[in-house]
Amino acid sequence: MRVVKVGFLGFGNIGSGVYQVLRDNADLIEHRDGLRFEVKRMLVRDVNKNRKFMVGTKLTTDVADIAGDPEIEFVCEFMGGIHPAREYILEVLKAGKTVITANKQVLANCWPELQAAAQESGAGLYFEASVAGGIPIIRTMWDSIQANHIDSIMGIINGTTNYILTRMTEEGLSYEEVLESAQKLGLAEPDPTSDVEGYDAMYKLSILGSMGFHTRLPIDVIYHEGITKVTKEDIAYGKEMGYTLKLLAIGKKRGNEVEARVHPAFIPNTHPLASIRGAFNAVFMHGDAVGDLMLYGRGAGDLPTASAIISDLVYACHQDKHRYMTFKNQPFLDPGTTILEDWESEYYLHVKVVDKPGVLAKMTQIFADHEVSVASVFQKNTSAKEGSASVVFVTHKTRELAMKSVLKDLEAEADVLEIKNCIRVEEGEQDA
Amino acid sequence: MRVVKVGFLGFGNIGSGVYQVLRDNADLIEHRDGLRFEVKRMLVRDVNKNRKFMVGTKLTTDVADIAGDPEIEFVCEFMGGIHPAREYILEVLKAGKTVITANKQVLANCWPELQAAAQESGAGLYFEASVAGGIPIIRTMWDSIQANHIDSIMGIINGTTNYILTRMTEEGLSYEEVLESAQKLGLAEPDPTSDVEGYDAMYKLSILGSMGFHTRLPIDVIYHEGITKVTKEDIAYGKEMGYTLKLLAIGKKRGNEVEARVHPAFIPNTHPLASIRGAFNAVFMHGDAVGDLMLYGRGAGDLPTASAIISDLVYACHQDKHRYMTFKNQPFLDPGTTILEDWESEYYLHVKVVDKPGVLAKMTQIFADHEVSVASVFQKNTSAKEGSASVVFVTHKTRELAMKSVLKDLEAEADVLEIKNCIRVEEGEQDA
Repeated sequence: MRVVKVGFLGFGNIGSGVYQVLRDNADLIEHRDGLRFEVKRMLVRDVNKNRKFMVGTKLTTDVADIAGDPEIEFVCEFMGGIHPAREYILEVLKAGKTVITANKQVLANCWPELQAAAQESGAGLYFEASVAGGIPIIRTMWDSIQANHIDSIMGIINGTTNYILTRMTEEGLSYEEVLESAQKLGLAEPDPTSDVEGYDAMYKLSILGSMGFHTRLPIDVIYHEGITKVTKEDIAYGKEMGYTLKLLAIGKKRGNEVEARVHPAFIPNTHPLASIRGAFNAVFMHGDAVGDLMLYGRGAGDLPTASAIISDLVYACHQDKHRYMTFKNQPFLDPGTTILEDWESEYYLHVKVVDKPGVLAKMTQIFADHEVSVASVFQKNTSAKEGSASVVFVTHKTRELAMKSVLKDLEAEADVLEIKNCIRVEEGEQDA
Repeated sequence: MRVVKVGFLGFGNIGSGVYQVLRDNADLIEHRDGLRFEVKRMLVRDVNKNRKFMVGTKLTTDVADIAGDPEIEFVCEFMGGIHPAREYILEVLKAGKTVITANKQVLANCWPELQAAAQESGAGLYFEASVAGGIPIIRTMWDSIQANHIDSIMGIINGTTNYILTRMTEEGLSYEEVLESAQKLGLAEPDPTSDVEGYDAMYKLSILGSMGFHTRLPIDVIYHEGITKVTKEDIAYGKEMGYTLKLLAIGKKRGNEVEARVHPAFIPNTHPLASIRGAFNAVFMHGDAVGDLMLYGRGAGDLPTASAIISDLVYACHQDKHRYMTFKNQPFLDPGTTILEDWESEYYLHVKVVDKPGVLAKMTQIFADHEVSVASVFQKNTSAKEGSASVVFVTHKTRELAMKSVLKDLEAEADVLEIKNCIRVEEGEQDA
């Protein structure tokens, strides 16, 4: 049995979860892996704050107490945010201590720098908990599908937006109604921007895509669009057509071309991702050998995240020599790789138009001008008082830039009163 | 870059798949992991047989050519069956070579012996491909949820039966009709017993349960029942009640009590396992820290299985020292662990009765006598000619043994013409 001393950077909700599981399941971990973890120091901002676990003098406000402690081998970081997490992580890595982080933001933004520091000192850098909470998606990419060219990753990797969209779908509520309720329940932040505008999913896609495609996928090449414009009408219209609306993080790779985008998308109800409800996460991938593969579970929460962090701790203890990502360790996209901005998709378009003869003909002509083929068109409701009608188009597969041209021309058309929403439709090809 | 020489035991469909992926994705594997695999010898029964890959003098019929070759470090086994796979695996393990096997049957039957041989010579024993094909369920249990007490495992881990049940459900066909078609398509064996009677799932549950519960779960303690008695009427009646029928492999653990059983079961349509279609596999687990976790993918096929085998090869290459399962290495259930045969479930019961007044009262009295509470009862169809009626009961949660007593008394009742089927209903508790 080996006793392993650990330091924590942060001791809030996640840190308390790790502390609790390490304590409650200590016998299990010792029995299985011959390891006993002892959390020696926790770095916090305020040692006097009331905490779930009162650990007295283990608390410190000085990172040097952890970085400079020769007994501490592993350091877990769950402060969140870039600063000062980045600086603290660098300091302990430079001191030769292996870092286990749950912090997607610092990893997505500072990965090359962190990895370089780890490699230089021979320390490990582990981050299972940074994407999709308790779901072992990082380890799966690292240790289970190594022999595969991954050509597609589609993830529901933000629990807050999936919770909001699920309730909008199942209860017919508006975005604003559900957001307010989610904030009251603590399921959405007081400032929900990072979740609802797709930043959080973008960080995670940067990590997943980099690993899956063996090429650095920095956040600045990822297109992102949030769910704030989604209406209950859009969801209801999609439902009628057999679609479920999700905030998807999509990465695709063909040769040296990579697509990377986060946006709301309709997917067929028969797709496994359509049934992912509430705050759950799932990542659906396709590899040339393994075929379709999906992992599903809790994307957040103290204990699921603790499960992932401790899995890294145990895993790291068994490594004779730490390994590092083999893609080029640089802050920018690999030379030779290009980001495809003109990707293919189908599109759902909801427009409010003047209710008079000839308007539909004008609109369909605009689609035709840009060689966008319309698969179906429905007039959804008319308001005699306003003299307006809502029209929903669904296109066949077309190019993003062609669709953008359609939108531009529709906006310039006098009889088009408002483009309510344009939502991509991902058929999400599945193996037979 | 390290060149790794590999031997194959068997060179049929799976072996060819591994050979193909090692060849086609060699650059990827070298780039990612610094490894280049060279398959040096393949043991076959007949060197003159026509094969997908003609490898000439690499073929041998003598296992000593592999066990005795000092250059060969790793041996992959995909012969299937117990003999002579067991003897060959033992021979190469004793020669100090790490074995990677896709053979659930030999593992479920001979695990203690194989592990003992591996530990004695310091060789590794890896078996990701033995359960659920390309799905990394073994690695996940081994390296990702180590900190969890797993209390429940529910798996769809036999593709043939899931294919049959899916087509029966979606096309309203009978068991016999789909089986015949599946056999023609090569999706079911000419002798389908191992799949349709639940043996295959039982082997896999023995492996999964042993790992998940950290206790040996030998096959002889696993209850198993196949799908041959399932009728299209049962599936249709279940559908009306919001249930989908699946062949489930179920393991549950509470304290020292373990349930282990393979049988057809209705699950609510809203459960993630209900949407697993066709030949796909999925394993749904619950751990005390991670919560609900499900892995989904291809449970069979040459390339998905190759993906799992190569993942073991690469993983094994990175191990400084091989690790072994930490449960007691013995052929029987751990002393102190008991197998619960009187588990809890709900039950669907389909009986054909004489269509006359008072029969329902007699039957419900039998349920009452054994304290089994009936949740609902439907008369499904009557045949005036035969003077008979079909009645479907669904019980509240009750005990297996109480239900067996109900069945016994119903059988003895003169007005009960036939017990058509009794199918367990698993609510499959999910996290909120």
